[in-house]
Amino acid sequence: MDKIVLKSPLDMHLHLRDGEMLKRVGKYSFSQFSGGLVMPNIVPPVTSKKDLEAYRGRVLAEVGDEKFLPYMSLFFKSSYRKEFLKDLDILVVKLYPSGVTTNSDGGVVSVDIDEVGETLQAMQDLGIPLSIHGETLGDSFEREAEFIPTFELLAKNFPKLKVIMEHISDRRTVEILDKYPNLFATVTLHHLAKDRDDLLGGALNPHLFCKPILKTSKDREAIQELVFSGHEKVMFGSDSAPHQREKKESRNGSAGIFSAPILLEGLVTLFENFGKLELLQNFVSENAKKIYEISPPQKEIVLERVEKIVKEEYGGVVPLFANEKLNWSIL
Amino acid sequence: MDKIVLKSPLDMHLHLRDGEMLKRVGKYSFSQFSGGLVMPNIVPPVTSKKDLEAYRGRVLAEVGDEKFLPYMSLFFKSSYRKEFLKDLDILVVKLYPSGVTTNSDGGVVSVDIDEVGETLQAMQDLGIPLSIHGETLGDSFEREAEFIPTFELLAKNFPKLKVIMEHISDRRTVEILDKYPNLFATVTLHHLAKDRDDLLGGALNPHLFCKPILKTSKDREAIQELVFSGHEKVMFGSDSAPHQREKKESRNGSAGIFSAPILLEGLVTLFENFGKLELLQNFVSENAKKIYEISPPQKEIVLERVEKIVKEEYGGVVPLFANEKLNWSIL
Repeated sequence: MDKIVLKSPLDMHLHLRDGEMLKRVGKYSFSQFSGGLVMPNIVPPVTSKKDLEAYRGRVLAEVGDEKFLPYMSLFFKSSYRKEFLKDLDILVVKLYPSGVTTNSDGGVVSVDIDEVGETLQAMQDLGIPLSIHGETLGDSFEREAEFIPTFELLAKNFPKLKVIMEHISDRRTVEILDKYPNLFATVTLHHLAKDRDDLLGGALNPHLFCKPILKTSKDREAIQELVFSGHEKVMFGSDSAPHQREKKESRNGSAGIFSAPILLEGLVTLFENFGKLELLQNFVSENAKKIYEISPPQKEIVLERVEKIVKEEYGGVVPLFANEKLNWSIL
Repeated sequence: MDKIVLKSPLDMHLHLRDGEMLKRVGKYSFSQFSGGLVMPNIVPPVTSKKDLEAYRGRVLAEVGDEKFLPYMSLFFKSSYRKEFLKDLDILVVKLYPSGVTTNSDGGVVSVDIDEVGETLQAMQDLGIPLSIHGETLGDSFEREAEFIPTFELLAKNFPKLKVIMEHISDRRTVEILDKYPNLFATVTLHHLAKDRDDLLGGALNPHLFCKPILKTSKDREAIQELVFSGHEKVMFGSDSAPHQREKKESRNGSAGIFSAPILLEGLVTLFENFGKLELLQNFVSENAKKIYEISPPQKEIVLERVEKIVKEEYGGVVPLFANEKLNWSIL
């Protein structure tokens, strides 16, 4: 087989940024995907209808003639009530515990029912899913595992609320997915393909530094097993998060892996290496369509068995797999 | 107490490098310490009498008029025999498993008795201690723990050989120190003062990237407890390992923390913060004198209670504690 067609691929966790960076990186997502969930942690974060519509407008201006539907999100605030939310065209509200990642400072200080319950009740009533960056401020490699009781608390207390555990990275998180019918997950390409030894086992590679941080090879294997089991509650979300090269290669390296330019080529190469190509269409589109009950624009992406060496920079940003070889190309 | 005098402080694990870098960084050690164990992993590593004496000569040329005695070391090769070793003026032979750190490529592929036994027997007969960078090539945070059986194997099979576990970083390593009378350890300032959350819990700080990598806060606490118990088998070795700023802030960040310029000021500040100032003289000099049976030059270093903000660069290298405040200064 030398050709693969992906139908309406979706990137359900995407940082398009804003301003100059949006102009530089948006095109990689718009050309490869038929839609994507656009994260709201720009500066300032998207917390009002006015900001939401203005940001959607800036994104759509960059989409231009491409067939790509940006699904918008709102930055969680515990002050949101039903009257406000029911009036918005959003796919999710995204919750960030304060301080866990890029531009999350305005996030929630303590994720407990007292603080967030009223808003979650409104979301449940309106059928708006909750998207969560699930990490505490504890030890760097234990943060996601430490957040598991919170995932469980929310799933249990709001059984009709769809709770999306974003970019899961820890084998212990995998274990709770089936405990609650309303728990779902996104998985990135980098958590499938890399582990902490790639980040810092030899030299230090700041371009593989992200939150949640890459975990052990055992965690990577658990994430792979989950995805390659064809689990229907798991969907692809790249968490592609560009930072300029100078901001990564510095004394205060920013967190985020930029994967947008090579996502589908990387996914096809990886799924083929594991003999699981037949599961890719579900992972990259069908599962998300069912979970979110969405109908993205029809679009076909053709990949051919043509080797490519990933460039070291795209628009001043160093991508995942820089200088590495992929077996498939979008020509 | 506003003044502290340290007598003949010793840095028993020191990378002075060579050439231009030696000229830039040597002075920080020569002015603060009365002696130090100079590591042999320069390029090419020190493996012959000729190289050893030439390197000693280059170091002494930089020492100049300072009162500082460089204790030299040889890069372990399993081909060394008694005839060769007995003729050398060295304090230790330093063993690197191949690939574990900077310029260790010529190191030992498998540390087992079949490969290294004959050389260790010769060292034991001659009374030359073995210094080891004890790490495997396994998971980045498990490498030192995975090496523990090898430490035990060597200590058990060569009971008269002094085995120095260098720059210990893992709480599990602490636990074997008292199991064998011939096991000893060095501890760095950075493993006492920092942990992995300082390296990558917020932004990524490549200047805190080293081998063995900074571990969890629990590991740091175990190392602190060991040192602040006044253990006589533990001595100070900075593992100060300078790399130019550009080599640290890059796609392939070099491993090594540069602490030489602020070692004694940092140590006094830390020991005072823990209420353990009375143990510092032993840690930084007396223990090493007993373990290695050495008599370094007499030298007194005076520190005064004067705050200093550590500079961001010394000779183009970013030091430990850059821009942080220390409570004591060498004026």
